[in-house]
Amino acid sequence: MIITISNQASSEERAQLMSLLCRITASRMPLATTHISEREVIALDNTVLDAQSQQLLLQQPAVTELLPMKTSYQLVSRSFQPADTRILIGTGHACTSITVGGPSASPVIIAGPCAVESREQLLTTAHAVKAAGANILRGGAFKPRTSPYQFQGLGVEGLKLLAEAREQTGLPIVTEVMETEMVDTVAEYSDILQIGARNVQNYALLRAAGKHSAKRPVLLKRGLASTVEEWLLAAEYIVAAGNPNVILCERGIRSYDPQTRNVLDLTCVPLIQELTHLPILVDPSHATGRRELVPAMSRASIAAGAQGLIIETHCDPSTALCDGRQSITPEQLARIVVETRALSHLMQGSELVQVA
Amino acid sequence: MIITISNQASSEERAQLMSLLCRITASRMPLATTHISEREVIALDNTVLDAQSQQLLLQQPAVTELLPMKTSYQLVSRSFQPADTRILIGTGHACTSITVGGPSASPVIIAGPCAVESREQLLTTAHAVKAAGANILRGGAFKPRTSPYQFQGLGVEGLKLLAEAREQTGLPIVTEVMETEMVDTVAEYSDILQIGARNVQNYALLRAAGKHSAKRPVLLKRGLASTVEEWLLAAEYIVAAGNPNVILCERGIRSYDPQTRNVLDLTCVPLIQELTHLPILVDPSHATGRRELVPAMSRASIAAGAQGLIIETHCDPSTALCDGRQSITPEQLARIVVETRALSHLMQGSELVQVA
Amino acid sequence: MIITISNQASSEERAQLMSLLCRITASRMPLATTHISEREVIALDNTVLDAQSQQLLLQQPAVTELLPMKTSYQLVSRSFQPADTRILIGTGHACTSITVGGPSASPVIIAGPCAVESREQLLTTAHAVKAAGANILRGGAFKPRTSPYQFQGLGVEGLKLLAEAREQTGLPIVTEVMETEMVDTVAEYSDILQIGARNVQNYALLRAAGKHSAKRPVLLKRGLASTVEEWLLAAEYIVAAGNPNVILCERGIRSYDPQTRNVLDLTCVPLIQELTHLPILVDPSHATGRRELVPAMSRASIAAGAQGLIIETHCDPSTALCDGRQSITPEQLARIVVETRALSHLMQGSELVQVA
Amino acid sequence: MIITISNQASSEERAQLMSLLCRITASRMPLATTHISEREVIALDNTVLDAQSQQLLLQQPAVTELLPMKTSYQLVSRSFQPADTRILIGTGHACTSITVGGPSASPVIIAGPCAVESREQLLTTAHAVKAAGANILRGGAFKPRTSPYQFQGLGVEGLKLLAEAREQTGLPIVTEVMETEMVDTVAEYSDILQIGARNVQNYALLRAAGKHSAKRPVLLKRGLASTVEEWLLAAEYIVAAGNPNVILCERGIRSYDPQTRNVLDLTCVPLIQELTHLPILVDPSHATGRRELVPAMSRASIAAGAQGLIIETHCDPSTALCDGRQSITPEQLARIVVETRALSHLMQGSELVQVA
Repeated sequence: MIITISNQASSEERAQLMSLLCRITASRMPLATTHISEREVIALDNTVLDAQSQQLLLQQPAVTELLPMKTSYQLVSRSFQPADTRILIGTGHACTSITVGGPSASPVIIAGPCAVESREQLLTTAHAVKAAGANILRGGAFKPRTSPYQFQGLGVEGLKLLAEAREQTGLPIVTEVMETEMVDTVAEYSDILQIGARNVQNYALLRAAGKHSAKRPVLLKRGLASTVEEWLLAAEYIVAAGNPNVILCERGIRSYDPQTRNVLDLTCVPLIQELTHLPILVDPSHATGRRELVPAMSRASIAAGAQGLIIETHCDPSTALCDGRQSITPEQLARIVVETRALSHLMQGSELVQVA
Repeated sequence: MIITISNQASSEERAQLMSLLCRITASRMPLATTHISEREVIALDNTVLDAQSQQLLLQQPAVTELLPMKTSYQLVSRSFQPADTRILIGTGHACTSITVGGPSASPVIIAGPCAVESREQLLTTAHAVKAAGANILRGGAFKPRTSPYQFQGLGVEGLKLLAEAREQTGLPIVTEVMETEMVDTVAEYSDILQIGARNVQNYALLRAAGKHSAKRPVLLKRGLASTVEEWLLAAEYIVAAGNPNVILCERGIRSYDPQTRNVLDLTCVPLIQELTHLPILVDPSHATGRRELVPAMSRASIAAGAQGLIIETHCDPSTALCDGRQSITPEQLARIVVETRALSHLMQGSELVQVA
Repeated sequence: MIITISNQASSEERAQLMSLLCRITASRMPLATTHISEREVIALDNTVLDAQSQQLLLQQPAVTELLPMKTSYQLVSRSFQPADTRILIGTGHACTSITVGGPSASPVIIAGPCAVESREQLLTTAHAVKAAGANILRGGAFKPRTSPYQFQGLGVEGLKLLAEAREQTGLPIVTEVMETEMVDTVAEYSDILQIGARNVQNYALLRAAGKHSAKRPVLLKRGLASTVEEWLLAAEYIVAAGNPNVILCERGIRSYDPQTRNVLDLTCVPLIQELTHLPILVDPSHATGRRELVPAMSRASIAAGAQGLIIETHCDPSTALCDGRQSITPEQLARIVVETRALSHLMQGSELVQVA
Repeated sequence: MIITISNQASSEERAQLMSLLCRITASRMPLATTHISEREVIALDNTVLDAQSQQLLLQQPAVTELLPMKTSYQLVSRSFQPADTRILIGTGHACTSITVGGPSASPVIIAGPCAVESREQLLTTAHAVKAAGANILRGGAFKPRTSPYQFQGLGVEGLKLLAEAREQTGLPIVTEVMETEMVDTVAEYSDILQIGARNVQNYALLRAAGKHSAKRPVLLKRGLASTVEEWLLAAEYIVAAGNPNVILCERGIRSYDPQTRNVLDLTCVPLIQELTHLPILVDPSHATGRRELVPAMSRASIAAGAQGLIIETHCDPSTALCDGRQSITPEQLARIVVETRALSHLMQGSELVQVA
């Protein structure tokens, strides 16, 4: 059930509604509201509200309407909000803000090293990717590693270096958060919270990313073996918890062929755009695991309709502490920026993207 | 590098070692020690310690020896500890304790509902599974659900009901923990902490399960698309953080055929026993998703060498709030207990299991 | 539509029916009949026969009844024939015949080398597997190899050596056929025609195996990535073409984990037995690709209900021209025969297999 | 071992070489030679020729040199022939020939119905796809169907209709061949022999497609779960048997997500171009199984570097006997032709494709 809240409700009327809802749903915590599709809503399992409760709710001055949920994911579905979600990145910090999602002349390019390794490495790379045309800087301060003995990132020290890089370059930053306890800290430093493939069904983390007070946009990667439906339901967790600003990111799915790290499922790009209003980016670096394949798959991603790319870039890939095999140089990035902007321009100009 | 600590070290010598290690590794927190294979050890990435640091460490009275790590997972590997780990379940609560792992006449049977739904449902099922011959009671208080609108479990209320069921039946209990903040609470009530398939690479949770003060044994399910190596590295996270008592549980991996929920990979049972000293159980309920297939796959699991089973059992599967399609009745469970014990007895008696 | 033919029809009445059917279906070749479930039938797509044609057919003295097809596969389905198909192996050649399928005290054990390499290798292995308790000898004369430059088998020379091994040991033989043109030749020498995983959707070969005059039983392996439904439809091709004696064989499906060659999907054993009346065997050698895992998976297969095993066995695995890594020795085979017969005996005696 | 044959060898010298080779390799049939990379060669397993045999061969006047094989596939590898293979389509029939492969201004577009259903359906569609800008007409006369009861195609009658469509439109035709016995017949009518995904490891068919006298180019689809290496080895079978004109076609691989029919693995496009000199096309229709996704994936394929597309097109998809769900209309095809040519032109003009 989607409960739409009146934007003319007084704070008293809102409090009364919340109190009623806690009673009806036996919840001890206030329920989250989300501003989505120019409405403020609360989403609840259809089965929670019996006819009498629905009657009670409709009598509340703070309630505009009740809509039954029709699909497993509701708030993120294209049928709930037909128009593309547009997400403004970089507000609240001194940097050049940029919009992700919606019709736009240029794909968003996120670039930077897999991990923040040192001040020099990060700042050099940050300036270089900015010069190459990137719009947002990426870099891991907390690294999810398959082995407990691999380099786990610089932690808060890494966050501070990212903030310094933003200050120097004006690029907004995105970095991964792996623990609920760290959501507020990462949100303090970063412009986008990244939730990685391994945490796509870490529901506590998804909820925390939805509820945190700064409401930073969330970049939600697809899980290693997520179906599209599971992935959209993960996004629904974040949105239902109060944060409508979710950016999806395809990064390859597990497969049987050892020739590439994963299989990049580009078909999910037009499919996602049919099913949801959220923007979708592609990460060709993790998808392929080999830098030689990154330029072609960057072009293909944009041609498939992706609204941007996230590309691992390192000034000296051979010395990278993490994923050097898939990192490109800033020079290679510059070529990709030129190519993908030309492709995007062509598709806009000739209305190619409207064809599908 | 594995640092073995002398069991004759004074507390002063230990403190001195810890302080030195923090200095060498630039860690601000004391490093975790683990009691494994009758030694107390600290595991560190080989590359962290240069020759001089190693020299310094060897001069410490609290250090017995330094061993290089040879494989990606080390503490859990069969080469590090040739003998099977045996884990005593149920200490610290009033219940009938039982050992998991090692040569044993009977497989351990864990049974109970997917989710704790109500006091009556749980207690009825608990008495019924005990009567059917189960050794440990399972039941979800916190449920990881693909959709935010599905039943999420009773929470702490569910934990209390589980404790009451233990009190009444004498069966130790196992229940899932999904958040680092809840590890201590779940450990207070439960005899085993379960970490589910979706959290197999939630490293914060793995570490918390390793570090928590009660040191409850951990039942670590295989991820939806984990390789055996990734799974053993997840176990290594827990052990390296201080808790050597990890029980592995195969529960099926993702596949392309919609006929069953997952593909049960039974070959991983003898493979795991070759690679690690940790015990391994099988969950035929989640693996198949269909109750008709549970008896045959229970027999097959034990014949493959599994040290136990975890089976969803519900007094009235048709009314279950969660996974009723794969739940069996206590009567069906009783048959499985008889069958698998007979198989296990045959294999022990004729030394079948030594053949592989 | 299933057309049941009267067993009292005269040859004239049968000829008249066939002629009518060719006219109705616009087929230039006589349609195949199959003896299955104690009836002689012809299976046709439901849509082929309009009401008038059905009327015409029912007026034929040679027609007993018309049944609509209810599922994608019909003749092989358990609903069409509730009782297990029992297939007698070894008729027509001087050897010890054996029945596959149906309730039986002992699983059928098929063993022998991957490829027939030489007279000495084959005869030595044949005598050894017989001594170890195997019932049927396997050996590849025509080998499907991923590379055109790998050893492709001895061809007809290999068939002759297999026939000699049968003569010496009394064991029926099974060998693979890869080409429609070779079906009659292989059927002349072999007691069972094997169709390998790579040819599970080679429809010309399936039809030829159904139509060939000797009507040898067919051992149909599951394809590398077949769904259970696709596999049963492949069996339906053979049966609908006139040969009801199909033995299914699970041999592992493609997966993402390089630790084993394939993933053995043992759950398909009880599933197949629910869906079809055809017998099912398991090939633990190709499934795992590692001989250390073969004994445990042999036990698990029988415990899951498989009616037999096909195991690669070589007198000197280290010198095998093909798949030596997964071949066991005759001594190891002897242990597996003892173990699996004991398991099977236990399951029969205690009626374990009826439980599912 | 690659034996290079002198182009100045007399027919007597060639015959002498062949006779010697048959003796050395114990083959009763003459070995196949292939014209590839401007040489005529014979490829043999390295291990077949001992030092003495090599010496004998080098003394033959018909032999220019002997090269050891370095990789599992050799003749199709980029290291054996650095330059792209260019294949001229449509020779030998009255039609407009076209080149596939190599640097070219426009991608090749193959379009037409899944199956040839009737004269009217085929001719109408053929004229429509020509008008839409397609270069080659596709249509199935022999259809590989998962069920024996599905429409299996019109057979030779379908081939004749395809030939009539070529006559009327001037478009070369491509159609599938499923049986070795039919290779010559299909080669008589068709300009390209298609080998489908199910037959990618049907080695008899691959060899027949390599040996047939008309030497028609072969369109080899990737198998449902082929690795790139297995696929290239299948191509090697054809080339080693005497036909160097192989066109690869990615058509999606099996996956776990039911949202699309298969997962289109576009990353294999640049990967294939790194590993082999053979051209590669993409079939977005079978890959996605849904017509709405075809335009975006067509664009993405060309942006990834594919040298052409094969797209199911039907004048009235709703009435198609086969795969209507994934067929587009000629109007939609016309848009795709315009879009992909514009993309290709952009990539040529700005040298985007040289970037990778």
